[in-house]
Amino acid sequence: MSGEDAPAEQQNAVDQKLETKPAEEPKAEPPKAEPAPAAADAAAAATGDDEAAATPAATTEKVPEEETFTYRALVLTGYGGYDKVKLQVKKGKPVLKTGEVQVRVKACGLNFADLMARQGLYDRLPSPPVTPGMECSGVVEAVGEEVTERKVGDRVMVINRCGLWQEVAVVPATHTFLIPEGMGFEEAAALPVNYITAYMMLFDFGNLRPNQSVLVHAAAGGVGIAATQLCNTVKDVTVFGTASASKHEIISQGGVTHPIDYRTKDYVEEVRKISPKGMDIILDPLGGSDTHKAYNLLKPMGKLITYGTSNMLAGQKKNLLAVAKNWYHQFSIHTLSLIQGNKSVCGFHLGYLDGEMELITQTMDIILDLYKQGKVKPRIDSTWHLEQVGDAMRKMQERNNIGKVILSTEPMPEEEKKEEPKKEDKKEDKKKDDKKKDDKKKDDGKKEEKKDDKKKEEPKKEEKKEEEKKEEPKEEK
Amino acid sequence: MSGEDAPAEQQNAVDQKLETKPAEEPKAEPPKAEPAPAAADAAAAATGDDEAAATPAATTEKVPEEETFTYRALVLTGYGGYDKVKLQVKKGKPVLKTGEVQVRVKACGLNFADLMARQGLYDRLPSPPVTPGMECSGVVEAVGEEVTERKVGDRVMVINRCGLWQEVAVVPATHTFLIPEGMGFEEAAALPVNYITAYMMLFDFGNLRPNQSVLVHAAAGGVGIAATQLCNTVKDVTVFGTASASKHEIISQGGVTHPIDYRTKDYVEEVRKISPKGMDIILDPLGGSDTHKAYNLLKPMGKLITYGTSNMLAGQKKNLLAVAKNWYHQFSIHTLSLIQGNKSVCGFHLGYLDGEMELITQTMDIILDLYKQGKVKPRIDSTWHLEQVGDAMRKMQERNNIGKVILSTEPMPEEEKKEEPKKEDKKEDKKKDDKKKDDKKKDDGKKEEKKDDKKKEEPKKEEKKEEEKKEEPKEEK
Repeated sequence: MSGEDAPAEQQNAVDQKLETKPAEEPKAEPPKAEPAPAAADAAAAATGDDEAAATPAATTEKVPEEETFTYRALVLTGYGGYDKVKLQVKKGKPVLKTGEVQVRVKACGLNFADLMARQGLYDRLPSPPVTPGMECSGVVEAVGEEVTERKVGDRVMVINRCGLWQEVAVVPATHTFLIPEGMGFEEAAALPVNYITAYMMLFDFGNLRPNQSVLVHAAAGGVGIAATQLCNTVKDVTVFGTASASKHEIISQGGVTHPIDYRTKDYVEEVRKISPKGMDIILDPLGGSDTHKAYNLLKPMGKLITYGTSNMLAGQKKNLLAVAKNWYHQFSIHTLSLIQGNKSVCGFHLGYLDGEMELITQTMDIILDLYKQGKVKPRIDSTWHLEQVGDAMRKMQERNNIGKVILSTEPMPEEEKKEEPKKEDKKEDKKKDDKKKDDKKKDDGKKEEKKDDKKKEEPKKEEKKEEEKKEEPKEEK
Repeated sequence: MSGEDAPAEQQNAVDQKLETKPAEEPKAEPPKAEPAPAAADAAAAATGDDEAAATPAATTEKVPEEETFTYRALVLTGYGGYDKVKLQVKKGKPVLKTGEVQVRVKACGLNFADLMARQGLYDRLPSPPVTPGMECSGVVEAVGEEVTERKVGDRVMVINRCGLWQEVAVVPATHTFLIPEGMGFEEAAALPVNYITAYMMLFDFGNLRPNQSVLVHAAAGGVGIAATQLCNTVKDVTVFGTASASKHEIISQGGVTHPIDYRTKDYVEEVRKISPKGMDIILDPLGGSDTHKAYNLLKPMGKLITYGTSNMLAGQKKNLLAVAKNWYHQFSIHTLSLIQGNKSVCGFHLGYLDGEMELITQTMDIILDLYKQGKVKPRIDSTWHLEQVGDAMRKMQERNNIGKVILSTEPMPEEEKKEEPKKEDKKEDKKKDDKKKDDKKKDDGKKEEKKDDKKKEEPKKEEKKEEEKKEEPKEEK
């Protein structure tokens, strides 16, 4: 997923406008003088793609289309709470580089990394303002030079480092996968990140085989449900799944052998009661002290696969205490302990698998085969309009979802805007407050963006170094 | 390998005699009053096997056989140099417990753990005096009750926690594997530990697949050669192997794609030259700073499997500086680093896989199938008489071997004893000095053994706790 330049260029090339009443038709403003070749240079520098840099921006003369082409986009304007993700309008038809495709986005998937990113806890997201979003589905509406595997009209699912929570996304064609017949756009947006993650953890690091036992934390979450389904493709695998009691019926139907209510019971004790020797594989999205527990729960030859630090997320803004606690309790392991225990500790995060698209594509092919055989099927928890992104994120962060939380790019009907959103059950007041804040901060947001444009003229090769520095999460501005 | 009680009982039940001129017929001394039932109790307590404790020692009346039954055994009399392993004579026919077999040993394998154990650096070996040895081959000459899978006359290979470097070994029948037709005793003694270790590392933790790359350290050692052969059972696997230049021709013939002389070149640079992205799997028997290097040499989704700390071995006696350096440089990894790197770190040591005989047996079945197909074949470096165990250990410790170092229980011909041993090329004087020291220390050895007998009357359930304490290696007495 090395296509981080694409969304950056999309941001560079257009003027952004805050949309205060989300579904109103945005006013067409004349675009500013566009530094298209410079942007292309910068983008090419970031990917080391000299050919792209040499390609002149052939569209500069089609001024009318550039001016009239607009699309809605979610933009993270700064680190913080749910209100930091704003719906804006971008203008100007994106310029495709060699190997890229332009996708008319239909649905987008939410991931925990998006929540971490909003709080400044995910170093793979470029600095705000930036459009988040690691996966989406849609239809190809333009292809760049040398794209042979995709054509206009193809229904595709997409993964990318970021930049997919918008109506129009530009990505390398290699980041797209054809949607199988019979799969809807919402399902397609729910599949890539969760199923690739679950598959690579279970079958590459985990080396899952018949008769083994797997502990799946957050078994009602997107990865949890994918992992459960994938476990069930192997003979006689026993799945232990943690989830709050209200979700047990659904996850049991989904294939969890032993649901465990981690809120009222000590899950370690519960697992030991049933499997005294422990687990063959443990998937750990929690981090902190739960990773220690997982390590001790492993059988000899057992594999602990940690893929997140969701324990760091406490509240909608960065909770310094939770972050510090997580760092303090962060699991660190000596090799002598691994040797004496015959254990394996692995870390996984799809967001850091840059440049491994071949591996990811192989994995996707297997997953899509399993889908066609009816062995896996994403479960959609709920679908939200772009305007409701804050509520969608809240639902996920508060662990109220069972399955995937999806954003749809369908325009929000006027009547819904006046009503309370159908799928929201609480905290409506808070949400409205957030919206007011949005309005207030709109000018600040604009200033930040301009600053950022300036910065981007510097060559992007520096980007990687900057990201490394960012390991210590930034304070909210 | 929970049969640690068997050799302990063997030691308990007999009087030991130092053999000053190794091949002389030992004098038959009347055995001491034998605490057989007590020993059985203690052994049963150690394994939690109540049935065994209830079985009376039915052979107590066969006094003549008990007295006349003698066999030679190597005994570690205290931690230290090569001279601490002495050839002694044990007396008295071992009493078999339920499920055990008695094996007339033909050949024994040497492993790095034996060298560590001699220096007091391996906590799975009971305190001296104790007979070392984790693998051997031989012929079943008696079976205990309830043994159905083995019969007298079966040719078997054996693995056990210790106690196999002697002419007669008593082990649980489940620790034995039938030797395939056409496999000699030396080959059979060379196979179990190295091939099980290499197999489980590559195919359980490593999940080795076609087109992958593997870095094998000490590629001319027992595990190195086994790993190379096993890598070659998978399509298009590239093997990078470190060894000193003189061994390159042989390891290349054995299947190493890229031999690297670690003594004259920086192996990290050499690997990067050929495979800039790094390795899919690295097998690390070295520990210390080499584990750090290995971690950095991993590709995304790569697996580092560490299975020893041979860097700790510097010289024949415990080298406190080397041990301290190894501890200081010991690799410790944070989960966040694993997540960001998409990497796996595993530890393996067959000696700690107690109670996983089912898994080990499954693995052995696969390995023996590969042997029958001609895909794997142990390479014997050299075979030594029991009297030459010091020289055999030195050859291995000084990395002068290519393949497995074997001890044979064949009596040493008189003429060889007077000659220089055929297979030794140097340090003869030192060896002779060691022998003199042996003689001098023989009485001390005896005293130590008696002390130990007393200790063993305490219930063995304490044993595990004691071993944990021993993590800080003991000083040589």
